[in-house]
Amino acid sequence: MQTLWESRYAQRMKGMKSSAIRDLLKVVEQPGMISFGGGYPAPEVFPVKEFSEACQKILSDPAKSKLALQYGGTEGYLPLREMIARHTNRFGINITAQNVLITSGSQQALDMLGKVFINPGDHILVESPTYLGALQAWNAYQAEYITVNSDDKGIKTDELEEALRRGPKFMYLLPNFQNPTGVTIPLERRKIIVELAEKYGVPIVEDDPYGQLRYEGEHIPPVSVLDDIIRHEQGNANTGNAIYMSTFSKILAPGLRLAWIIAPVNVITRLAQAKQGMDLNTSSFIQFVAYEVASGGFLDEHIKLIRKVYRERRDAMLDSLEEHMPDGVRWTHPEGGLFLWVTLPEGCNANDLFKKAIEQKVAFVSGESFHPHGGGENTMRLNFSFQNPETINEGISRLGKVLREALK
Amino acid sequence: MQTLWESRYAQRMKGMKSSAIRDLLKVVEQPGMISFGGGYPAPEVFPVKEFSEACQKILSDPAKSKLALQYGGTEGYLPLREMIARHTNRFGINITAQNVLITSGSQQALDMLGKVFINPGDHILVESPTYLGALQAWNAYQAEYITVNSDDKGIKTDELEEALRRGPKFMYLLPNFQNPTGVTIPLERRKIIVELAEKYGVPIVEDDPYGQLRYEGEHIPPVSVLDDIIRHEQGNANTGNAIYMSTFSKILAPGLRLAWIIAPVNVITRLAQAKQGMDLNTSSFIQFVAYEVASGGFLDEHIKLIRKVYRERRDAMLDSLEEHMPDGVRWTHPEGGLFLWVTLPEGCNANDLFKKAIEQKVAFVSGESFHPHGGGENTMRLNFSFQNPETINEGISRLGKVLREALK
Repeated sequence: MQTLWESRYAQRMKGMKSSAIRDLLKVVEQPGMISFGGGYPAPEVFPVKEFSEACQKILSDPAKSKLALQYGGTEGYLPLREMIARHTNRFGINITAQNVLITSGSQQALDMLGKVFINPGDHILVESPTYLGALQAWNAYQAEYITVNSDDKGIKTDELEEALRRGPKFMYLLPNFQNPTGVTIPLERRKIIVELAEKYGVPIVEDDPYGQLRYEGEHIPPVSVLDDIIRHEQGNANTGNAIYMSTFSKILAPGLRLAWIIAPVNVITRLAQAKQGMDLNTSSFIQFVAYEVASGGFLDEHIKLIRKVYRERRDAMLDSLEEHMPDGVRWTHPEGGLFLWVTLPEGCNANDLFKKAIEQKVAFVSGESFHPHGGGENTMRLNFSFQNPETINEGISRLGKVLREALK
Repeated sequence: MQTLWESRYAQRMKGMKSSAIRDLLKVVEQPGMISFGGGYPAPEVFPVKEFSEACQKILSDPAKSKLALQYGGTEGYLPLREMIARHTNRFGINITAQNVLITSGSQQALDMLGKVFINPGDHILVESPTYLGALQAWNAYQAEYITVNSDDKGIKTDELEEALRRGPKFMYLLPNFQNPTGVTIPLERRKIIVELAEKYGVPIVEDDPYGQLRYEGEHIPPVSVLDDIIRHEQGNANTGNAIYMSTFSKILAPGLRLAWIIAPVNVITRLAQAKQGMDLNTSSFIQFVAYEVASGGFLDEHIKLIRKVYRERRDAMLDSLEEHMPDGVRWTHPEGGLFLWVTLPEGCNANDLFKKAIEQKVAFVSGESFHPHGGGENTMRLNFSFQNPETINEGISRLGKVLREALK
């Protein structure tokens, strides 16, 4: 039965459909299913005791509880913003709390960037494949995309200049352990990216949810740092053309829905105006809890634990792939993060394989949906953070069976 | 120093400015200030002990904590949605959990309705004055407004038909203890509204944050119920043309940022698609905590306490106004909610008076900003929930002094 609403959807809803990944969740809940589909952190590393102590501490303190349960400022809880500024400065990004805006998860940060910057028809430069959540957020603002292919060193800088010439509104990158591919952009390419962005006057959004989850190799400076250095050399300190964003989802817990944007102060002001209309402010209680848990040095120690657990899981997946995958199947070797990327022989269709995999009780995300202009039908994203090493081995064994059957 | 971002703001940002109320917060933090400005609940009625117990219960249960700290479904935590459906059915709205979408505060619900329904230039029918947060959310979608004046019985139904003829996308109403005026639309007018909406095929968004906070008089059925009854009589049950929304902000705590939308299932599906791109899901932890606190009958008992405290404060404000206001000043007598509305003699300007009031350490929100097409320069909104009766009396005494001086 139709209601009056059905004929009244806005034009921007035309391209909007449910995320392949969110819909996958329903399948994944089947008993016995081993899912490499979602981007779930391991619940085993949630700091439950520390969350519990933080809640007690806040709620047993009348002054704190009064503030934690009340409306708060749109920009976020000041001690939390100051802590994020301090942590960020360690990576060479020279900022204060005034450059930090707290968001209700990174997804809100992406939505907010869309609201503040994207006119219908604006072109955004993205890697192909790129993070699905960004496409979902920006499709609602009727963005178009200029795509640049990536290889095992991330976005192909030899194709970047041509794309920048087309005048994108901004460039969106995930330089560390990219979602979905798991690859990391090396320093040399980062320098080229910053120089080309400078040359063509295109600002950069750098999304870095996994930056602290490196399991091997050396830390590489964020694009935002390189950008800031260039500006500094030109005598324009603190006027970088990059916006940096990160999240507590992978280093504390995604159930908090807590993330942040780092940007020039003028931009923070505009983003905060948009956020007022979006949710007034992010839950004060959640911000107080995250601050209590993360402060006093706990977060750094906790990240070491996460790295240890996820490194084991990544290694388990790499070993299992080596053991179970038929010839002709390739995959990335991520130095960190939560995902790796499998490429099947040309002509294979991961969407078709998905149904067979589900029958064998193993799930993945097929790669096509990460490509704004299509392609990648023979690719899939595998998550290695959620399942323990034994389950990973069993799941990859099942997947190997499906692939061997299909590639016969 | 300009960055590349400054020249790149989207067109929709042109009309976006910071909310008068949010900016007011900075003034209000001055020592000794008595603020009737914000819409803050009284921190004295936050159920702090129950929150603390709920956090303990969830975080000491491995199965619960694992889910509460993880990503969740976009529509919300099912037991919470079921509880909201049960509570709502008591008011005669015949729904299930499938009709309920959890949002990150009512502000997100408004933003989401804008995203899903409003094309640039679409006209939304609102009361004048109306809730500022709705205007802020919808201005970002470049909405235009058709305004209908209100009196001490809410929206003037004798002006409504003319406005409906102009073909608004939908009509937005706060029938109970409206923000900002505090007035309630009587049953007779509600019936007329539903009949006229039906006649002109215009759907209704009913915003009801304060519905349970009635201090005198009889409960009046929501517009959504009346709408549903009409549809039922026509044999089209469950296809009502109203969307209903409410929140935990005023009955538990605004620091949760937790609210809900009730709509036809088809609409919920589209809203959830939009929400995926906005914040994936509302904090699972917050939803678990709210469910623990609200379930088992506590919420009903707690609302009785809130009603008692706020009734005293409303009465204190009405008594103080009677005592301290000079002749020619009028105000509403709200039967519930958090606000009352003061009308000064014609020619007085509340914005000018605001500066004088701040000097006397008392704050309010001037009424002009609640009018999408201007007007209301001689009006102001006073909140009576946040301050205790003694402070209310002192604040109104200060305000009376300012007004007597100004009206000389």
